[in-house]
Amino acid sequence: MGKEITSREQDYSQWYNDIILKSGLADYSAVRGCMVIKPYGYALWENMQHELDRMFKETGHVNAYFPLFVPKSLFEAEEKNAEGFAKECAVVTHYRLKADPERKGKLMVDPEAKLEEELVVRPTSEAIIWNTYKGWIQSYRDLPLLINQWANVVRWEMRTRLFLRTAEFLWQEGHTAHATKEEAVAEAEQMLEVYATFAEEFMAVPVIKGVKSPNERFAGAEDTYCIEALMQDGKALQAGTSHFLGQNFAKAFDVKFSDKQNKLDYVWATSWGVSTRLIGALVMAHSDDDGLVLPPKLAPLQVVIVPIYKGEEQKALLDEKVKGIVQSLKKAGVRVKYDDSDNSRPGWKFAEYEMKGVPVRIALGARDLENNVAEVARRDTKEKQSYSLDGLETKIIELLDTIQQNIYNKAQAYRQEHVTKADTWAEFIDLLEKKGGFVSAHWDGTGETEEKIKELSKATIRCIPLNNEQEAGVCILTGKPSTQRVLFARAY
Amino acid sequence: MGKEITSREQDYSQWYNDIILKSGLADYSAVRGCMVIKPYGYALWENMQHELDRMFKETGHVNAYFPLFVPKSLFEAEEKNAEGFAKECAVVTHYRLKADPERKGKLMVDPEAKLEEELVVRPTSEAIIWNTYKGWIQSYRDLPLLINQWANVVRWEMRTRLFLRTAEFLWQEGHTAHATKEEAVAEAEQMLEVYATFAEEFMAVPVIKGVKSPNERFAGAEDTYCIEALMQDGKALQAGTSHFLGQNFAKAFDVKFSDKQNKLDYVWATSWGVSTRLIGALVMAHSDDDGLVLPPKLAPLQVVIVPIYKGEEQKALLDEKVKGIVQSLKKAGVRVKYDDSDNSRPGWKFAEYEMKGVPVRIALGARDLENNVAEVARRDTKEKQSYSLDGLETKIIELLDTIQQNIYNKAQAYRQEHVTKADTWAEFIDLLEKKGGFVSAHWDGTGETEEKIKELSKATIRCIPLNNEQEAGVCILTGKPSTQRVLFARAY
Repeated sequence: MGKEITSREQDYSQWYNDIILKSGLADYSAVRGCMVIKPYGYALWENMQHELDRMFKETGHVNAYFPLFVPKSLFEAEEKNAEGFAKECAVVTHYRLKADPERKGKLMVDPEAKLEEELVVRPTSEAIIWNTYKGWIQSYRDLPLLINQWANVVRWEMRTRLFLRTAEFLWQEGHTAHATKEEAVAEAEQMLEVYATFAEEFMAVPVIKGVKSPNERFAGAEDTYCIEALMQDGKALQAGTSHFLGQNFAKAFDVKFSDKQNKLDYVWATSWGVSTRLIGALVMAHSDDDGLVLPPKLAPLQVVIVPIYKGEEQKALLDEKVKGIVQSLKKAGVRVKYDDSDNSRPGWKFAEYEMKGVPVRIALGARDLENNVAEVARRDTKEKQSYSLDGLETKIIELLDTIQQNIYNKAQAYRQEHVTKADTWAEFIDLLEKKGGFVSAHWDGTGETEEKIKELSKATIRCIPLNNEQEAGVCILTGKPSTQRVLFARAY
Repeated sequence: MGKEITSREQDYSQWYNDIILKSGLADYSAVRGCMVIKPYGYALWENMQHELDRMFKETGHVNAYFPLFVPKSLFEAEEKNAEGFAKECAVVTHYRLKADPERKGKLMVDPEAKLEEELVVRPTSEAIIWNTYKGWIQSYRDLPLLINQWANVVRWEMRTRLFLRTAEFLWQEGHTAHATKEEAVAEAEQMLEVYATFAEEFMAVPVIKGVKSPNERFAGAEDTYCIEALMQDGKALQAGTSHFLGQNFAKAFDVKFSDKQNKLDYVWATSWGVSTRLIGALVMAHSDDDGLVLPPKLAPLQVVIVPIYKGEEQKALLDEKVKGIVQSLKKAGVRVKYDDSDNSRPGWKFAEYEMKGVPVRIALGARDLENNVAEVARRDTKEKQSYSLDGLETKIIELLDTIQQNIYNKAQAYRQEHVTKADTWAEFIDLLEKKGGFVSAHWDGTGETEEKIKELSKATIRCIPLNNEQEAGVCILTGKPSTQRVLFARAY
């Protein structure tokens, strides 16, 4: 199986696609830029959803559901937001098909079923949600409103990539309303913290927390907080964003509340989201040339047990032993499978589960049973070790923790090696070309310079880290004075 | 609060809308025919999803996700299915908006961004899924394929009603592929059984299992199984359907497999779904003139505790006592809330939780504490009873079971009283007009007669019950011979 995957060195981009397709995470679809999330990929997404949803609820949020469609007149209400998304909108213009009189058995759009007002398929839901909040908020007693939505959204991207950039994707979008600016800013920061915790503790992906430069802000936001991760090819990936929206949407949709003194004011807002893009980040951060490497906490299958036997008698003995192991692992909450299917050989199964990134594989043969041992293979290091069958379950559970930690440590070590300071333009370019990763450099703080740097180097400002060290310096491009370094990288 | 709801007798339809809006289940939206599912309604849906998803997985299904859009050429491939849904399709024709040169700050559809092929927003996903399955199925080893999807779908209905019929709704759709006809039929029947179990055990709504007449079949199905429930106004409601699709979609999308003898054949299919419509059914089946009545197993909040006190000292004593009760109820998995908010009086809270259908309300005052008792009110019967605080938790858990059972029994008794035989046309009409419910009557088995009966009586054949008793008789309309009675009703 290993041979079927292009190696990272040979073609990183092809390696990524190979892994997604061959491990069964996703497939291309007949719709331009849209993908099919296959059962294995969806199970991974369900595990992510489960943890995120728990974290959202623990921080006081509730889920709701708002319409897929945004009438054009609402969509255009917040001008910056509308401008930011107008170029990539799927637009519904008709509500009926009819038989095509000229082509038997074919359908055509019924010109008589043209909508009076076009409907935009939501690229994000601020507009439809703030138009709804208008009816829900009158007084400070109605605040804060802490709502999240799990949904599909559509952005008509020209260049798409499985998970990383697709025309339709699944995500969650939190939309909160607050009485004060301070509370809204604290909410945006809290959710960034939730995302960072999720990325590091569950995905085992270390992230840098920061704020975007004005050029890179979400359309309609006053401030965009983000977590930035680093992939194995040295490119950065924005893994989640949390926006402080100020009063922009409240003003666009005229959402006011009366405070305790009966004074009317516009409501303060945040929005925040992560998407199925996280799966792309997970794949790129940890996998190797043999396939996926999944962190145990999110792996759909954590442990697989493969029997090795000749004849029914040996099989029966193994079945009996494995039954107990499976039961006690399941009882401990471990996602385990006993693969005793007889339509493929152990070697084929080993390669298959390696491809799928199952963290622990246990092989158990008749001889092992006699010796009271099993062969335990780790997916992350590919080490194999003989374990006693006594207390095996406890050791497997410990091993899952060890693997989770090791995957994180490895990614963390790589990331730490790949944050490098550059003090001149030549150093900056050299680092981007030869080493990759984040380049920490001075910038004069203007959008023009940022744009110029991007044009010349293909690197963007990924973020200004939170609690960034203040340090006098000069901009790598213009030589103008600067008060702090920011993180540049080429990015997905 | 109670006075704010229109009574059922006065206007059943208005009563229904009042309940939905005032209990906070849902709200109207700015998009024609689409609704907003508010947090309380969504929490109910999450509980339903949770149980259904568990049942699907226990029967061997996995989840996946397929694109929202169906290219027109795929949509029209299965002709009957296409014909059935063409009249109510939202169609995406463009992928960009641009600034309107004639209206500053406004947007218009960019005529240069017209799609080469129109995209239909999925009204159901057979087409896109079977086009995908074509690439996944080659051999009998790839079968069965047992996949479910949780998704939003759009059907441009002309007359819409909150939850019962909305342009966009949330649902799950199972799509399975099998090597034999028998296996596919067994799958369709199994999923009908799952739906019936869910409706009766969780929603506390008794249902009749049956098959649809050919006229009422899903477009593209060979057989449609359904569960039919009865609402309090005597109208029936289709609560779930499971379709045996034969080889129709396999033929339309050319999906063949080679069997063990290496012979090629088309694959057999099923599809099955339930939607947020179930929430409408739940509301209509159990609620009363004071608001929602929710079955404990699905209620977002099962128990609410309201303190009654004067002064901080009393409050502190109550807090201390309630803390222990809440802890042990939560530990037992009960969804409980201590509402000690000081911005509304106990009486207001009582009415509010009645409106929201919380199954059990516990009121605890300072005097109660002295007497070691609490006042426990049941939402279903509105009975109040004094319970000793000793062992309160156990009794509350028992009470939740009792309420679940009682709600079911009540609906079941009503349903049993409302299945009535009619042997003549006059009786038939009389029953529909005066009594409502299901009318069990002979029918000559033709689509024409069925159509005529619908025209004359507004009643449709809801189903031919499974294992229907065979009995010679004559059609109530035409007098032609018939071998069995079928169930008619006016329906949502």
